[in-house]
Amino acid sequence: VSTKAAPALALDIGGTKLAVGVVGHDGVVSGMIVEPTHREEGPDRVIERLFAMGRRSIVASGLSQSEIVGVGISCGGPLDSNAGVLLTPLHLPGWVDVPVASMAASAFDVPAILVNDATAGACGEYRFGAGRGADSILYLTISTGMGGGAVLNGKLHHGAAGNGGEFGHIMVHDGGRACTCGRFGCVEAYAAGSAIAARAREFIAAGRPSVLSNLVEITSADVAAFAAIDDVAAQVWSEGMAALATAATDLVNIFEPNVLVLGGGVTRSGDILLEPVKTAVKRDALPPAAAAVEVVLARLGDAVCVVGAGAYALDFLRTGTEEGLYA
Amino acid sequence: VSTKAAPALALDIGGTKLAVGVVGHDGVVSGMIVEPTHREEGPDRVIERLFAMGRRSIVASGLSQSEIVGVGISCGGPLDSNAGVLLTPLHLPGWVDVPVASMAASAFDVPAILVNDATAGACGEYRFGAGRGADSILYLTISTGMGGGAVLNGKLHHGAAGNGGEFGHIMVHDGGRACTCGRFGCVEAYAAGSAIAARAREFIAAGRPSVLSNLVEITSADVAAFAAIDDVAAQVWSEGMAALATAATDLVNIFEPNVLVLGGGVTRSGDILLEPVKTAVKRDALPPAAAAVEVVLARLGDAVCVVGAGAYALDFLRTGTEEGLYA
Repeated sequence: VSTKAAPALALDIGGTKLAVGVVGHDGVVSGMIVEPTHREEGPDRVIERLFAMGRRSIVASGLSQSEIVGVGISCGGPLDSNAGVLLTPLHLPGWVDVPVASMAASAFDVPAILVNDATAGACGEYRFGAGRGADSILYLTISTGMGGGAVLNGKLHHGAAGNGGEFGHIMVHDGGRACTCGRFGCVEAYAAGSAIAARAREFIAAGRPSVLSNLVEITSADVAAFAAIDDVAAQVWSEGMAALATAATDLVNIFEPNVLVLGGGVTRSGDILLEPVKTAVKRDALPPAAAAVEVVLARLGDAVCVVGAGAYALDFLRTGTEEGLYA
Repeated sequence: VSTKAAPALALDIGGTKLAVGVVGHDGVVSGMIVEPTHREEGPDRVIERLFAMGRRSIVASGLSQSEIVGVGISCGGPLDSNAGVLLTPLHLPGWVDVPVASMAASAFDVPAILVNDATAGACGEYRFGAGRGADSILYLTISTGMGGGAVLNGKLHHGAAGNGGEFGHIMVHDGGRACTCGRFGCVEAYAAGSAIAARAREFIAAGRPSVLSNLVEITSADVAAFAAIDDVAAQVWSEGMAALATAATDLVNIFEPNVLVLGGGVTRSGDILLEPVKTAVKRDALPPAAAAVEVVLARLGDAVCVVGAGAYALDFLRTGTEEGLYA
């Protein structure tokens, strides 16, 4: 296998799931494995399991470790991508200053690179998904929390500290719900999966009748599923989508992208998420920006961060940019 | 004069003022001339005067027309920078589809390029002003209206339709004041000079006592000047600055820039504009973004668009990018 064609190993560290796979230059993933994170076990044990999953993925792909050209690691922030260190990831409480890139470089004996998960998602959708062929795309991920990434004029935007694209922290309701970031009224406090579920629980706790009160645990998927027949679900969902539409319109005005890709677990609800956002952007954004943008759902599904982290590592190795690479 | 060292002529078409000058590769402007636009005379007469100003500026710089290597034209949007056409500029009512770049190329017999005025401002501050030496800067202009531009990783961001950076149309008060863009509650409806003046007039019309009511015409500069001693001025100014601070914090979260430059006429008020914005960004933005960013006032003052348009034209000619250039 020549270096040029050799694939990368991609490792994604989520709050509830670890996902690994081998990613080729064509964006195809082989040997994908998903397992629970068990983050409470702490970084050393979790990362040991993550690397073991990586080795199994290489074998499952019919390869040997020496055929892997690099490792791409995707994780939520805050992280320092240049240093390859997880600083204090919000979804991994108690993990502090974990030098995951150098650990991976040692374990696999190849260069390893750390990237923000939403940045990886942007990279994946740009290279192999809904943003393919576009000059500039925004990737907005709506999951437990919200995040984002941008490819502008064909270049991934990192920001001064490597966390560029914190699209969840656009204020949409001045003085509104408390956000994890300390401000009030950020879009994440209305449209993220955890916020949608929390608001439904709050309405029920306040005495509003709802079919959702019969569920043991309410998720954003339940809210979406009952929005057509239940008042509480309908209000929570439509207010979440209105907040999302406001932030999406702001982003389209701010960046004037060719494509706005909506991804993450909450987007599994499909058209009842996509349509109100698309309608609002096309109606409310400034005319040249509204005309130029396509608002679409992500295409890479649950593999988006694995594809993105792998593609990102391969791009770095190919272009010879060394910043953030650990050999 | 070799082509490499030869300067550009820069022409800025504002709603109230035309500004022209000759810009060298060092960012120095010579022969700067500012005159009223008289936009009601229509594009043909105004542009004829603009070009005459340009010829006078060349002479005042001690040059002949053949020593000018190109023309940079800056104007507010919406415009089509690639086609070199002013579409329906908001500050020039009745001007429709004016092919100003090809008109300038004919008049001066050199390549001419059209650029959004806030994009020109971003370019000027990045190359020769407050953003010098930074990887990524945002330029937010607070004038009669609001606009913006971004230089990201050393590259000017244009957006899909050439109007990228419409930072005035970030919604900060859901369902708030009507904005020129059709939405309600955009930052421009609170923090732009015209909005600050209009709100003060509204408060007075509603019967609130204010020293401002003694003025024949209220401007945002008057509101700033009386904010320390007058309740209406204090409220309008502080609410304007709060809106500006919210949008600035959103932008710092979204882009994670090295420098956020605040420019435009309203920033002449200095610290009473800069300080509340800086304080809010440092306190409210996500910690890595807040730590990375410097919030500063623009350094190029009223010459910012002339310097920027000139620098932009020179950069285009030097790098050989032909899109948007008319010979």
